This record gives sequence, C-alpha cells and structure tokens, in this order.
Amino acid sequence: MTYCLGMLCRKGAVFLSDSRTSAGMDNITVRTKMRIYEKPGDRVICILSSGNLSLSQATLALIDDDLHLNESHPSRVHLMNRQTLYETVRYIGSKVREVEQRDRAALEADGFTWNINLVVGGQIVGLAPEVHAIYPQGNSIHASKDCPFLQIGESKYGKPILDRGFSYESTLMDALKFGIISMDATMKSNVAVGPPIDIFCYKSDSLQVKMRARLEQDDPYLMEISRKWQDGIIRLVRQMPVAEFSKNALGFATAA
Amino acid sequence: MTYCLGMLCRKGAVFLSDSRTSAGMDNITVRTKMRIYEKPGDRVICILSSGNLSLSQATLALIDDDLHLNESHPSRVHLMNRQTLYETVRYIGSKVREVEQRDRAALEADGFTWNINLVVGGQIVGLAPEVHAIYPQGNSIHASKDCPFLQIGESKYGKPILDRGFSYESTLMDALKFGIISMDATMKSNVAVGPPIDIFCYKSDSLQVKMRARLEQDDPYLMEISRKWQDGIIRLVRQMPVAEFSKNALGFATAA
Repeated sequence: MTYCLGMLCRKGAVFLSDSRTSAGMDNITVRTKMRIYEKPGDRVICILSSGNLSLSQATLALIDDDLHLNESHPSRVHLMNRQTLYETVRYIGSKVREVEQRDRAALEADGFTWNINLVVGGQIVGLAPEVHAIYPQGNSIHASKDCPFLQIGESKYGKPILDRGFSYESTLMDALKFGIISMDATMKSNVAVGPPIDIFCYKSDSLQVKMRARLEQDDPYLMEISRKWQDGIIRLVRQMPVAEFSKNALGFATAA
Repeated sequence: MTYCLGMLCRKGAVFLSDSRTSAGMDNITVRTKMRIYEKPGDRVICILSSGNLSLSQATLALIDDDLHLNESHPSRVHLMNRQTLYETVRYIGSKVREVEQRDRAALEADGFTWNINLVVGGQIVGLAPEVHAIYPQGNSIHASKDCPFLQIGESKYGKPILDRGFSYESTLMDALKFGIISMDATMKSNVAVGPPIDIFCYKSDSLQVKMRARLEQDDPYLMEISRKWQDGIIRLVRQMPVAEFSKNALGFATAA
C-alpha cells in the first residue's frame, strides 16, 4: 500500500509520500515514491506514485529515457520542455498509456488489475504552482483553491484532518504539519503504509529544490509530532462534554 | 453509504449507526440501520446493517417472520431463543444465506454486487456481552479485548480516532464520546453518511434497553461535540512544533 499527498497553497506546494511497498505480507521493502526533477530558475516538477510498482517504474523509465535521448535530439518532447504544467501532465499521461499498451493484457491475464496513480506538481517560470493527479487511464484533475489537496493510495484515514483544517490559505509550514499528521494517522491505521517519509516543500517562485527531507521512523521531529498529537487527541476527548441519557434523548451530564 | 460501529467494553457495549441511504445522488432517504430486540431480564440483541437496503430488509424480515410464527410454533428456532450469542449470530448468518439463495443471481445478472454486512451485539442472561460482525457470506467474527470494535460500511474515516484512544477498558460514556467523534469524522469526509445518528449504550447485566437515543442534525449535544472537537483539533495543530529545513533534514524551528 502507499499514501501520497500533494497540497496546494497560495505560498507554494507541499508533497509527502511514504516508502513502504508490499507484494504480500512476506515481501515488504522500502522504495521512495517521490521523484523530483529540477532545472533551477526554470521549473521544478515533483512526481508521487502509487499502485503497481512495476507500472510506476515503467512510466518513470519512459520519462527518463526521453530526457536522456533529448541530449542528442533537442527537439524531442520531454518532461522538462512543456510550456505549461498541464501539458507536462498530459505528457506523463501519454507515458502511462504507453505502459498500458505494453503491459495491461499480460497483467490482466494473470488476474492483476491495471493500477497506477500519480500526483504531479510544481512550477514553471512565469506560471503559478499547480498540483495534479493522473488516473490509471492517463487523464487528470488538478487541485484548486476550493479543493487544495490530492491524495493517492490509502487516502481515507488521513483525509479527515485535512478536511478539518488545511486550506489554500495555510502557510507552507502549517500545510506541512497537516500533511505529517495526515501521514501519521494513515500509518497508525494501516501497517502497509510506513516510513521513511519523503517530504518536499516548494516555495512559490523559488524555482529550485530547497526544502526537502526524508524522515526515518526514529526522526526526532516525526516522533515529537506523533507523540504530541496522540497525547493531545486523548486530552481533547477527555475535555468533551459528558453525555447523559433521559427519555430517549442524549443530554449534557449535570456533573461530569 | 452507511457507517455503523459496535464497541465492546468491560462495562458493556455501545452501538452507533447513521441513517442515510442513497441509491444515486438523486435518491437519498433517511432509514434507521439499527434494530434492537429486547426480552427484559433475559436478553438484548442489537443489529446494525449496511450494504444493499433490500438485502438487509429481507434478512430482518425473515428474522421477524420467525419471531411471529413462533407464537403458534413454540419450538421453532428464532432470534430470541438461541442459547448463546454465537448461536444467535449463526442463526442470523443462516438468514443472510437464505436471502443469498433467493436474490443473488437476479442481482448479479443486472450488475449489482452481493453486499450485506451486519454488526450484532448484546447479552444473554448468565453470559458476558459480545459484539460480532457478519460478512456477506454469513460467517462472522467477534470483537475482543485486543480488538474491541467492529465497523461496517464507510469504516476508514472514523477508524484513526478509535485506534488512538478507545479500548476495552474505556467507560461506556468515554466509548460513546469516541463513537460520536468517529461518526462525526465520517460524516465530515463523506456526505453519503449522515444524521440522524442512532445510539444505543448497553450496560452489562442490565438486560434491558435503557440508554437509547436518536440525534438529529441539530441535536445540541451532537453540535457541541462537533464544534468543540473541530476547534480543539485546529488548536492542537497550532500547538505542534514548527519545522525548519536544514541540509536535507527537518528540525525544530528555533523560533516559532
């Protein structure tokens, strides 16, 4: 399983991904699900992936091949020369479809489903930062002021905290807090999502990769957030008003 | 969609269910998903249901038919005369299988899936309270000290809060708080789960239905919990330590 999250803010974007892959309970490994491509001053593009590992690796391999072949064929279409982020996303979607043509029939013949989802975000010089999600069919949606985050993989456990407090107007460091708490909730409820956690905070118009980190299980900051959140939640439950039943209705207890 | 929750505690059991049914976005109605059967001093049995409404209604209709026919055939097997709660659950499972024999082929012929899940809990005199879940196949599992809650329907949004704090040793009123917060998180993240909320708190060895309530959307207690929880969560996020990036690591900001 996987949990990846892309968050769009007025001040930039925040990306998080876990690193656990499992092909059955006896085959669990650590692999990063975050790739960042950077051309300082021109563009930064971050790709998060979930689903079948061979399919996300195949898609990224095709993207990388185009980049390498570009050195001898400068007019070639590739990840880092599209005019807009939407065109970049369509290009990545075309690579998903290329892999689909190659592999889908063989996978389905053995009972595997066609399963790949991507989050793609970043900024191209002169344009605003954007965050998109690409479906297994190669089409996409993008985050907006009203719907400022996109999740792929094990998305439900970590969604309530984002619904409650994260918004487009959150600061980057507040967005990061919400993202880490969302990841923490997911890891707590699904052991197939686990550390290290890859984090990338992108500040609008910086056009370079500055705030990037990998948090191991024993990372002091991750542990501190996890512990303080757990303690705070339990304290908060205790502070909730106590209920009292009377005549098939629930009321407030007169004495707690 | 539906969210139902059965919680087992040393002091008894707590049951919650939402009341929204949707057959498409243009066909949303209110129907209770909680049924309680009571023979004071002898047994109390609570059934929560999720899945295809016609299937849960069919199962409950067969159960009720057995109870009514029992009046003229006292030796008949029915919901309220099994010796243990496990045998009661097996009986209900046999009714699920009876409906399956009648309806599955017709449903699947038109592309509907066979979808019914039940939570069954309560107490029979002389035995401890129990909470079980019945699968669409009619087999079941039961809650335990280590795994003290069972969910059916839209279970993921409301699971993290239960994982964090609810335990078999929680008091009934604390269990109720956790249950309401779990329901609130689910309603916030999925509009297909909605009020009124049916609540039943069963106190060990009471062998009668005393603490039962239906909370409408504007119920003062539900609104108070929902508001205080929302405010408390946001305050808690603000209290989390602020991060600072340095050399590809995340540390604590020296000044917030």
